[in-house]
Amino acid sequence: MVGLNPELAEFVDALPLVDHHVHGAFAADGSRDRFENSLNEGSTDMLPAFVSGFDSQLGFAIRRWCAPLLDLSKHTPADDYWARRVELGEREVNRRFLTAAGVSDWVVDTGFATTDLLDPAGMTTATGAPSHEIVRLEVIAEALIAEGPDDYVTRFRERLDAAKASGAVGTKSVIAYRTGFDVDYARPTDADVAAAASAWHRSLNEGAPPRLMHPQLLVFGLYAAADAGLPIQLHVGFGDRDLDLHRVNPLLLLPLLRTADVASVPILLLHCYPFEREAGYLAQSFDNVYLDVGLAVNYLGARSVELVARSYEAAPFAKVLYSSDAFGPSELHYLGSRLWRTAISRVFGAWVESDDWSLADAKRVAELTAGTNARRVYTL
Amino acid sequence: MVGLNPELAEFVDALPLVDHHVHGAFAADGSRDRFENSLNEGSTDMLPAFVSGFDSQLGFAIRRWCAPLLDLSKHTPADDYWARRVELGEREVNRRFLTAAGVSDWVVDTGFATTDLLDPAGMTTATGAPSHEIVRLEVIAEALIAEGPDDYVTRFRERLDAAKASGAVGTKSVIAYRTGFDVDYARPTDADVAAAASAWHRSLNEGAPPRLMHPQLLVFGLYAAADAGLPIQLHVGFGDRDLDLHRVNPLLLLPLLRTADVASVPILLLHCYPFEREAGYLAQSFDNVYLDVGLAVNYLGARSVELVARSYEAAPFAKVLYSSDAFGPSELHYLGSRLWRTAISRVFGAWVESDDWSLADAKRVAELTAGTNARRVYTL
Amino acid sequence: MVGLNPELAEFVDALPLVDHHVHGAFAADGSRDRFENSLNEGSTDMLPAFVSGFDSQLGFAIRRWCAPLLDLSKHTPADDYWARRVELGEREVNRRFLTAAGVSDWVVDTGFATTDLLDPAGMTTATGAPSHEIVRLEVIAEALIAEGPDDYVTRFRERLDAAKASGAVGTKSVIAYRTGFDVDYARPTDADVAAAASAWHRSLNEGAPPRLMHPQLLVFGLYAAADAGLPIQLHVGFGDRDLDLHRVNPLLLLPLLRTADVASVPILLLHCYPFEREAGYLAQSFDNVYLDVGLAVNYLGARSVELVARSYEAAPFAKVLYSSDAFGPSELHYLGSRLWRTAISRVFGAWVESDDWSLADAKRVAELTAGTNARRVYTL
Repeated sequence: MVGLNPELAEFVDALPLVDHHVHGAFAADGSRDRFENSLNEGSTDMLPAFVSGFDSQLGFAIRRWCAPLLDLSKHTPADDYWARRVELGEREVNRRFLTAAGVSDWVVDTGFATTDLLDPAGMTTATGAPSHEIVRLEVIAEALIAEGPDDYVTRFRERLDAAKASGAVGTKSVIAYRTGFDVDYARPTDADVAAAASAWHRSLNEGAPPRLMHPQLLVFGLYAAADAGLPIQLHVGFGDRDLDLHRVNPLLLLPLLRTADVASVPILLLHCYPFEREAGYLAQSFDNVYLDVGLAVNYLGARSVELVARSYEAAPFAKVLYSSDAFGPSELHYLGSRLWRTAISRVFGAWVESDDWSLADAKRVAELTAGTNARRVYTL
Repeated sequence: MVGLNPELAEFVDALPLVDHHVHGAFAADGSRDRFENSLNEGSTDMLPAFVSGFDSQLGFAIRRWCAPLLDLSKHTPADDYWARRVELGEREVNRRFLTAAGVSDWVVDTGFATTDLLDPAGMTTATGAPSHEIVRLEVIAEALIAEGPDDYVTRFRERLDAAKASGAVGTKSVIAYRTGFDVDYARPTDADVAAAASAWHRSLNEGAPPRLMHPQLLVFGLYAAADAGLPIQLHVGFGDRDLDLHRVNPLLLLPLLRTADVASVPILLLHCYPFEREAGYLAQSFDNVYLDVGLAVNYLGARSVELVARSYEAAPFAKVLYSSDAFGPSELHYLGSRLWRTAISRVFGAWVESDDWSLADAKRVAELTAGTNARRVYTL
Repeated sequence: MVGLNPELAEFVDALPLVDHHVHGAFAADGSRDRFENSLNEGSTDMLPAFVSGFDSQLGFAIRRWCAPLLDLSKHTPADDYWARRVELGEREVNRRFLTAAGVSDWVVDTGFATTDLLDPAGMTTATGAPSHEIVRLEVIAEALIAEGPDDYVTRFRERLDAAKASGAVGTKSVIAYRTGFDVDYARPTDADVAAAASAWHRSLNEGAPPRLMHPQLLVFGLYAAADAGLPIQLHVGFGDRDLDLHRVNPLLLLPLLRTADVASVPILLLHCYPFEREAGYLAQSFDNVYLDVGLAVNYLGARSVELVARSYEAAPFAKVLYSSDAFGPSELHYLGSRLWRTAISRVFGAWVESDDWSLADAKRVAELTAGTNARRVYTL
């Protein structure tokens, strides 16, 4: 393989990873439809007959990299793969993939909690690796408002403090999905927040779905997280079609990032595809901004090498983190790790081969992304 | 050549292609100025003295790949190339390039009809390959309005039905050139359309050029095509300087794509450069969305390898099509094919070499893009 | 090294370069903080303890390519590098790097004049290579208004004519930093300009900082430069965090570029990252538009190869220029040259190896970018 330095590849394959943004694996057996639909991030429809979830870079990567862990040959046909998966059952499949991921710490976003997925304790049980919780700001808001609109500001802050006290290491916002990033980031006053909370609560009584869509309440959540001294993860870029992708370009966060009030906590730009170069620019421009290219690494499969390479452009090396953003099939927890390791070995390996980087430097930067940076950000 | 798998390259070189978006070749001999200006998509000015149409990736690709078909050596100087081209004449030049393209089906956009170009029947005569017509929605509108404004809705629908009945396999819109994509995609009522048609007709009587610019009439055309069950090709991205390139980012189509009324027909995003990753994301997110990277492949020449690679990121493999978007010099009909085959052989070949993909899978995906996907979309 | 053609690499290494957009090197010794902060374009804060200016692609490139010129081994540790730099002193460091850059002509932007930097004469003294001045339009404006608001139009034009008469070869605008590109580019009338100048002058008397922010006065400067027959350099893309990066996409310049009044002079799009493909499209679309990828080449270090490759996509080869955009540490003046030469040798070398380009063509295009294009644009 061009660019493959055996010593570097061996080193990278052995690195324990902090998966700094991940969801639980499926807790129990499920149908092939559930599995194949989990391989399409963009659409929540049932796939039409002419498309298989396997006929994509992600599907090919599963057949290439995951099949051997199920005792199948590489590139095994999709039907054989599925048959073997059923035979082993979700529990055994999880055991194999989750341990093979080589993850030392799971930093779990519990915002999309469902009994379908393992919770943080379940992830630890399956792997022996500790789990750390990330609380979703919109979930807190939606739980609060269900209890009533009074003292929203105070109760929101208390909830965050309680989460921190019970071990949560950070927060996450999906403002990307709710309003996009092109909102007014001025800090709302307590009166603004109270008024918005009251209006939201009234709308719920009139039958609106309990989904936080109010820009000021979303923005308040960000400030509250910063006030609580908690890192803030932001969904950026690649997601499903409910999202206006052009309105979640991370450059639209500039007014927020320039705010002194949020400069005190780490801001973690997640996924970022296809805006990873813009995210890297922000990571250079702001001392508290970080990025990863999780989720997209899995979806790009063989093309993830170039994506990982682009994550090492303008960003200082202390600012690039690893995540899988896996959700559901534990293939995704493993594949995020496997594809990242392969990409690093190839990209850094080529730089070592061309003598642009030394081997020692390549190892050190791999370590930074694998875990050092995340441990510093979340004080793990 | 790194990444070249001889078996794969031979397979790809032999694949018959459905050129799903193409225009006619020049029908008769012409000047060198006509030829060189046909090698610049962006500008319609005469080239300044310090620039030759040959001093570009496209010009280099012509000297590299097309010269041998005119019995010249590779990389032959521009003057020698032109002299030989004149010697052979457009008819013989066409015969050589159009047959060498290895195209099984021409899907011809007749919207820019001119006696300078071969019509679909002429393309078939020159190659023996069947031609299929794509009707341009704006051309229908402009022909209708010239006849008067009455019953615009009904007559538009009748025209589409007639086109379908006489064998048209799809429609195309150049709304990108008329308003950009950032318009209101709400379905206009029949009354809205009638009022807009009347206003447009009055403006024509006052001397306005017969060019459809009205957003609601442009959007009506898209709904009418979907109502008629016809695929819709959309010019996206790379074009000439009349177009606001940043306003033809395909992500701006999201409100249209989310509309149930157009979900029933294939939407084909053409060219897409430099938004091919965004287009791939839409192709994953919507079951009825497809993309190609035609036109740009020719203009990027040696750099087209990376472009073709990027077309295989988020898009399911059932969603990527081949086109040349050639217009005029038949070098472009050939080169689109040649460069695409070379790019596929290199990109897929590298994945086979690194064992990311199996050889069998590489062949199958090449077949999907070469023709299978287009045959399904247009029911050829 | 894959893709390295020894004859081409030797040829490219020997090419004299016109550095068509550069600032002075540091005039005197300084602290390590000054040095490390000069390696971060995005932020003007002091770097936090966990980030070193050396832990980035730029820092790695300095340790790789610059260390040997200071008699150190490649990849030397940062502390050793700094110690040796101090030992030699800025003057000797400058002598080594500035001459090693192989620059035949410095085209110096004097807009950010400070006694910390060598002026054009100082650059010539240090290297023996002639310097040519680029005047900053906003600096002219800010000097004029300090003298009073009367006859602003006339005095602005006189100042430009005087600059031209005394040898200035072009102008530069940082409208990117002041308003972004999304402004009204209609030519302001003399009355508009006079009124805006008066308003600006009044605001200065009221204590506003002497920083030109008024869109019409910024746009007036562009027209005045074009009227004076002077090339216009525009900061595009990558810069520091004061800039709204998404609002300096060069496509937002389309309304200006379509104006006949500015079509008569060269417009030079500087840096362009991450919009280099959009800039290349404009260079194809408009006969008077040019681009470079300076600044970003240095910041991307080992990743600059792909960036340089992308600058040869849609742009005709007569439209791509070389610049370092170095400012301060003379490592940057050298590194811009070294990384560009390496990237060209690898990118063009790979095309020669794959027989996409001939060796003779590769040499010729390298010469165009190295100097021919800049000599024609600035009539050096």
